Order: sequence, then structure tokens, then C-alpha cells
Amino acid sequence: MWYKLRLNLNKLTPAQVIVTYYLLAVTIATILLSLPIAHKSGAEWSFLDAIFTAVSAVSVTGLTVVSTVDTFNTTGIFILMFVLQFGGIGIMTLGTFFWLIVGKKIGLKERRLIMTDQNQTSLAGLVSLLKQILLLIIFIEIVGAFILGVYFLGYYPTWQQAFIHGLFASVSATTNAGFDITGQSLIPYANDYFVQFITIILLTLGAIGFPVLIETKDYLMSKKRNKHHFSLYSKITTVTFFGLMIFGTLVIFLFEYNRFFDGMEWHEAFFYSFFQSATTRNGGLATMNVAEFSIPTLLVMSALMFIGASPSSVGGGIRTTTFALNILFLFHFAKGNQTIKVFKREIHHQDVIKSLVVTMMAIFICFLSVIILTFTEDHSIMEIVFEVASAFGTTGLSMGITSELSSIGKCVIIVLMFIGRVGILSFLFMIGGKEKTAKYHYPKERVIIG
Amino acid sequence: MWYKLRLNLNKLTPAQVIVTYYLLAVTIATILLSLPIAHKSGAEWSFLDAIFTAVSAVSVTGLTVVSTVDTFNTTGIFILMFVLQFGGIGIMTLGTFFWLIVGKKIGLKERRLIMTDQNQTSLAGLVSLLKQILLLIIFIEIVGAFILGVYFLGYYPTWQQAFIHGLFASVSATTNAGFDITGQSLIPYANDYFVQFITIILLTLGAIGFPVLIETKDYLMSKKRNKHHFSLYSKITTVTFFGLMIFGTLVIFLFEYNRFFDGMEWHEAFFYSFFQSATTRNGGLATMNVAEFSIPTLLVMSALMFIGASPSSVGGGIRTTTFALNILFLFHFAKGNQTIKVFKREIHHQDVIKSLVVTMMAIFICFLSVIILTFTEDHSIMEIVFEVASAFGTTGLSMGITSELSSIGKCVIIVLMFIGRVGILSFLFMIGGKEKTAKYHYPKERVIIG
Ligand SMILES: [K+]
Ligand SMILES: [K+]
Repeated sequence: MWYKLRLNLNKLTPAQVIVTYYLLAVTIATILLSLPIAHKSGAEWSFLDAIFTAVSAVSVTGLTVVSTVDTFNTTGIFILMFVLQFGGIGIMTLGTFFWLIVGKKIGLKERRLIMTDQNQTSLAGLVSLLKQILLLIIFIEIVGAFILGVYFLGYYPTWQQAFIHGLFASVSATTNAGFDITGQSLIPYANDYFVQFITIILLTLGAIGFPVLIETKDYLMSKKRNKHHFSLYSKITTVTFFGLMIFGTLVIFLFEYNRFFDGMEWHEAFFYSFFQSATTRNGGLATMNVAEFSIPTLLVMSALMFIGASPSSVGGGIRTTTFALNILFLFHFAKGNQTIKVFKREIHHQDVIKSLVVTMMAIFICFLSVIILTFTEDHSIMEIVFEVASAFGTTGLSMGITSELSSIGKCVIIVLMFIGRVGILSFLFMIGGKEKTAKYHYPKERVIIG
Repeated sequence: MWYKLRLNLNKLTPAQVIVTYYLLAVTIATILLSLPIAHKSGAEWSFLDAIFTAVSAVSVTGLTVVSTVDTFNTTGIFILMFVLQFGGIGIMTLGTFFWLIVGKKIGLKERRLIMTDQNQTSLAGLVSLLKQILLLIIFIEIVGAFILGVYFLGYYPTWQQAFIHGLFASVSATTNAGFDITGQSLIPYANDYFVQFITIILLTLGAIGFPVLIETKDYLMSKKRNKHHFSLYSKITTVTFFGLMIFGTLVIFLFEYNRFFDGMEWHEAFFYSFFQSATTRNGGLATMNVAEFSIPTLLVMSALMFIGASPSSVGGGIRTTTFALNILFLFHFAKGNQTIKVFKREIHHQDVIKSLVVTMMAIFICFLSVIILTFTEDHSIMEIVFEVASAFGTTGLSMGITSELSSIGKCVIIVLMFIGRVGILSFLFMIGGKEKTAKYHYPKERVIIG
């Protein structure tokens, strides 16, 4: 039986296996989070809510239909952290780690699985990479937990409470989960720039992509720093990541200058802009009620969430590199160039095609979701667009409609979070199939384009 | 002086010349429509309104900031029809016609201009094609005017009024201009299925693309019909055109079944659905106030207007072939196919790339416009999205906000109508430049995509 299952797994494409693994993780998470020992007495908890919370946790989105702090007791909080950890670092990473622990050699087949999950294109050094990822993330989380825990001693009556809040805040930030146990995101720390600053650093370390972290670590530890090469991927994603962060900060600051920020000190307005921009990469935590922003700001934030974080990170969306390649492509096409050159490298044509597929499919899926939700929900288009972008980007920000969604609405958001986390390419390959080479050809004929 | 201008024109790319011609046409139209002899006494008419109306007429969009019937007298109506004719059939077509009339030979340079305007990819037979276009369109308009004029004898007191209304309705429908001199679009004929049916036929003949008409004419007049070949372009655009029409009819019917159509006879509901679906291709006339539809319907209609009509037609938007190629590309990519096969032909890779560029740029431009308008206008997002899609698709439908737009708002809509008519590709090539081949190469490096 087990043997047969293994055989069947071997017949599946990597993308299909990844999706199967995620489905398995969601099932386990649903069961774990539904355990009675995890709940406070009297907490309301339907089966659909359980699935919603499990998908939101595994995909580290952070959208919630029930209040985390009102539903889960301390045991529940630890189970939730465990699920976030699984989701954030990626099931394949942990799977590989367990394989390493029990001493099994990782064959080419397994390596290829991981490759698809983290979307790596080089097989070399993958095993050692995964070890490093895990150690690095846990290291970051512990440092974050310690700093925040010590700082929270001033906020909470006992050191246990301070450190549990510190640990949860650190794990939630590093995995970009966006879950909170304050009951109101980071609003209690709206004027605490230290907590915000640490949180933004942790969010960024989680969302900027593991390869960037590893390459930076290698660079810092290398003795011949001038000979160290950063990969094209790292350069593109880092520039895009911080470019979007700066762009978002500027736009929010300017758009809300005479509106939400009216009468505020410049540093308050700046930190509100900066944090809310940074959080759209993938964090999902907020220092204010985003529904108070005006429509243009919310549209830009929706676009930023839709773009999302780096690939090979804890984030979702179409990913930074996809967006960067789209922009580079349009720019070079308009200039009439045949090849896309950036950082003294040429972009592979196949990658450009992939990036266009991802974006188009994502726009199509999100537009379809908006139409369905405007049909089933009794909320404004802005609230719905924001919710859809947040779910697809696995960001977790909301204008406050999540808990009021209808059953169909919840299902749509569940699917969006799932696709956002798995990634459009894996999703497409799952429903599609393996790459084929054409067996026959027809004559080519030109067509008039708009 | 004139000689120098010719020299400069020769240095411009075809796309730049096209855009220059359109700018010239808008200028002339602005002057013509501002002539005092065209106006009813007491009509209000600002300079921005004049430009808006001129762009709307040249691009045959039909969005109006002033009421046509309250502003223009009979002379004005004839001037407007003249401008619509110019815009609809295309300035280049008429330009070529004038060249033919004065007996000039058309050189390769001029042929290439026309080629870009109508986006033709074959030079052969272009001159004879253009002759046929003009004759065909005028023939269609006269037949339409006659049928509607005779029918309108029952609606209007004098035969002059009946035939002026018939002629204007025919020209407005065939050029897909969407202007009306009833003051309320086709709402007076909401229950007159004959007028609607004739209008849909005229709209379709104008928006389905000239090559389709010519090929169909050739097919019908050919003695060896079984040997006649329709071009790949004609097959794709016709299938997409009617596919979208049927899809739109079904969606509107289903979405509004319990809402706008509640309590109506099935044939009423069907004709409302059918006409409002057909009009999104490019017509812009409506048999009801579209603002009465619900949000999901309006979103779908916005998407349909954004797609627009066939290339080489009087319509705008990203065009049907662009949409079809996007869909075919995504479908084939998901299935893992390397080539796109349709109607026993292979699609040229360059055309797929073009179609993706057009769509991405169009989405970007429309999204940017929506953000600007939500900032400057005091209308709901749905009204703004609908207006933007209508302007870019040069459709001319509106939820009623056009005349209430701010000056910035009017400018945004003017730019959208202009880009929608000129086409994204011409627009890109205008701001960009000529196609270049790379002079040097960098090593290629793969990038991780979402
Ligand atoms: K998140
Ligand atoms: K129109």
C-alpha cells in the first residue's frame, strides 16, 4: 500500500507533488487547530473556519475569520506558531530536513521537488542550502524573540507574558504570518518606533528570499569579498523589493498628506507610510486601521500586495522578480530592443515568458474572484479588491470584512491564499501537465494585433 | 517650407506619422465643431469641451460632456457626421483615397503608413483594399440609412426628420460612434426590436474588421467557393467577436435575472442582454441606463469594453485578436505546449509577444487612470472603472459621470480615448523608437520566477 503510494508519487510531476504536500499540510493543520485542548472555553469554531484558519496559517497569510486571541489558549498559540513555522519555511524545506536527520540520502527526484517549491533553477548545493535556511530562520527568530521579549518587559506584568508575546511577534514577523495575539495587529505599537523598526527588519529578512540571505551571509563571511558575486536573481529581487518599499512609502505619504495624515507630525506620517508600505510586501501587520486610508492609497496598496514578496521566500503574490521582468520587458520592447539586459546580464527569454504567464493568470484569477465576491458579498468593491489582493499576495491585510464573508466568499479567499502560496506556475503545471515538444507543425501565419 | 515638412515626415517612423495625423484630425475637428454656425443659440461650450468632443468624435468613442442634441443645430449634426466618418474609417484610409483621386501613385513609404494604421502585415493589394473599404462602408451606411429612414417615417412627423434621423443613426452605428441625437441613446427604442436588430447588424459590420468584410465579399462573389481561403486573422477575430457577444449576453442575462430583469418577459430580458452585450464590442449605444445594472454585470461589461473590437475596424480597446492570442497562449503554456496551433496554423511567436505587450500596457494605463480619477473625482470606483474601460475601448458607454468630470478627469479620458483609437502598439512605438538589433551581448543568467 505504502509502496504503491510511493510509486504513484513518482509518476506525478514535481508541481503536482508540491500541491499534494500543501493539501496534506492544510489537512494536518486543520486537525491540529481544531483540537479542543487548543481552544478557550466557549470559543465559536465552525469546520469552514477551521479550514480557513489552517490555509491562512500554512500559507502564512494571516487573514482571520475568528479572533486569534479570543479563540486560542496558550497551547493553541504554540500550535499556531508551529503551523506558521511549517508554512513559512516551506513544507519541502522541513521535509528535506527530516530526511537529513534520519540520515537518508537525497536523490535527484527529491532534489527536483524542492527545486520546484523554492523555484530554484540550480541543483548544486541544494541540500546544504536547505540546512542553512532552517538554521538561519530559526536564528533570526530567536534573536528577534529575545530583543522583543526584553523590550516587552516594560509592557507586560510578568516575564513569561513578555517573552511569549516576544516569541510570537518574532515568529509571526519573520514568517510574515501577520497573525497577532494583541487582538488588533500592531496598532498598540503605533507610536512605538522601536517595535516597528525591529518588526520591519524581521519582515524583510523573511520576505526578501532565502538565496539573498545566504548570499549575503557568504559575502560577509568571505575573505575575498571583492571576488564575491551576487546572483542576478539576488540583485533583481533586492532592488525591486526596496524599490517597491520606497515607492509605497512615497505614494502613501503624498496621497494621505491632506487626508489621514492631516495635522500629524512629519515623523508620525512618515512611520505610518513606511510601515504600511513595508507590510504590503508580505507582513500583513498594520499600525492603523487601513480602512481609514482613501481609495487611491488603497488601490496602490492592493497593487503592491498583488506583486508580493521575493520568490523563494515566505511571501506570495506574483513575486518581485516577475514584476521586475514584466517592467523590463515592456520597457525594452517599447525601445525596440531585442534582448533584455540588466546588471550586465541578459535575461533568458523563457523567464520573460514565464513572468508574463504568471502576471496574466494572476490578473485573470483575481478579476474573476472580484466578480464572484461582488456577487456574493454585501461589501464595497474597494473592500473586495483589497481582500482579494491581500489573499492572493498572502499578505493578510484587510479592511475588516474577513469575518463577515459568506461561505462562498470564504471558499474564494481560501483558494486565493492557496494559489498565492503555491505560486501560479506550480498551480498551472498541476492542472496542466508536463512540458511537451511539438510532434508536428502547421504553417505559420501572421495575425493583426491591436 | 512644405518641402522641409515632407523631409521631416520621411524621417518619422510610421507610428509617429499616424499619431501626428490623428493630432491634426483632432485639431481640425475641434475647429469645425466650434464654428458658431454649428451651434444652437445659447449652447454652453468651453474649449476643453470642444477638445473632448473632437477626440471623442475622431476616435468614434461617443462619450459626451455636452448633450449633442442640445448643442448642435442641423449644420452641426452634419459636421459631426463628417468627423465621425473621418474618424471611423480612419484618416489614413481617406488620405489614401484623396491621393488616389488626385492621381498620385502610392509609394512604398505611404503604403507602410497605411499598413501600420490598419495594422496590416501584407502590402499586396493594399490600394485596392482601401478603395473597397470606402465603397463598402458608404454602401452599408446608405443601405442602413434607407432602411431606418423608411422605418422612422412612422416615428417622425416629416420625411426630412425621419431620414435625417435614419442617416445619423446609420452613420453613428456603422462607425460605432455611439453619438445620438435622441438625447437618450437608444432608450426610446428599448422595445423596438427591429431598430435594435438593424443597429446591431450595422455595429457589427463596422466593428468586425474591414479584412473580414472584404474576404466575405470575395467569398460570396467567388465562382470557386470551395477553393476560397479565409485568413487566420479573419477566423480568429470572427470567432472571438461572436464568442464575446454570446458570452456577454449569457452573463448579463444570468447576473441580472433576479435583479434588473426581475418581472420582465424572457424576450425583453434577452434583448436587453443581447443589445448591451453587443454594444460593448464598440457601439456605445444603449437601450437602458446601464447604471441600473448591478456591480458584477458592470465589471464584466468593463472587461468586454476593455477587450474592444477587431483590429482594422472602427473600434478600440486591446482588440479581439490580442485577447484571443492571450487566451491561446495561456492555455497552451499551461498544457506545456511549445507552439500555439489554431485553425491548422501556427501562431507566429512575435505576434504572441506583441499581444502580451498590448494587454500588459493597457492594464497598466487603465489602472493608473483609475487611481488618478479616484483621486480627482467624487464618484464611486465602479463608475470610474466603467468610464475608463469605455474610453480606452472607445466604446462610449457611461454610467452618467462624463459631464460631471473635473478638468483633470476630462484630460485623462481624452488621453485614454486617443490611445484606445491609435492603439497601444502605435503609441508605444511613437514614444519609443525603431526596432533595434542588439550590438553586443551579455551572458544569460536564469532568474527565479513566482
Ligand atoms: K502574511
Ligand atoms: K464607440
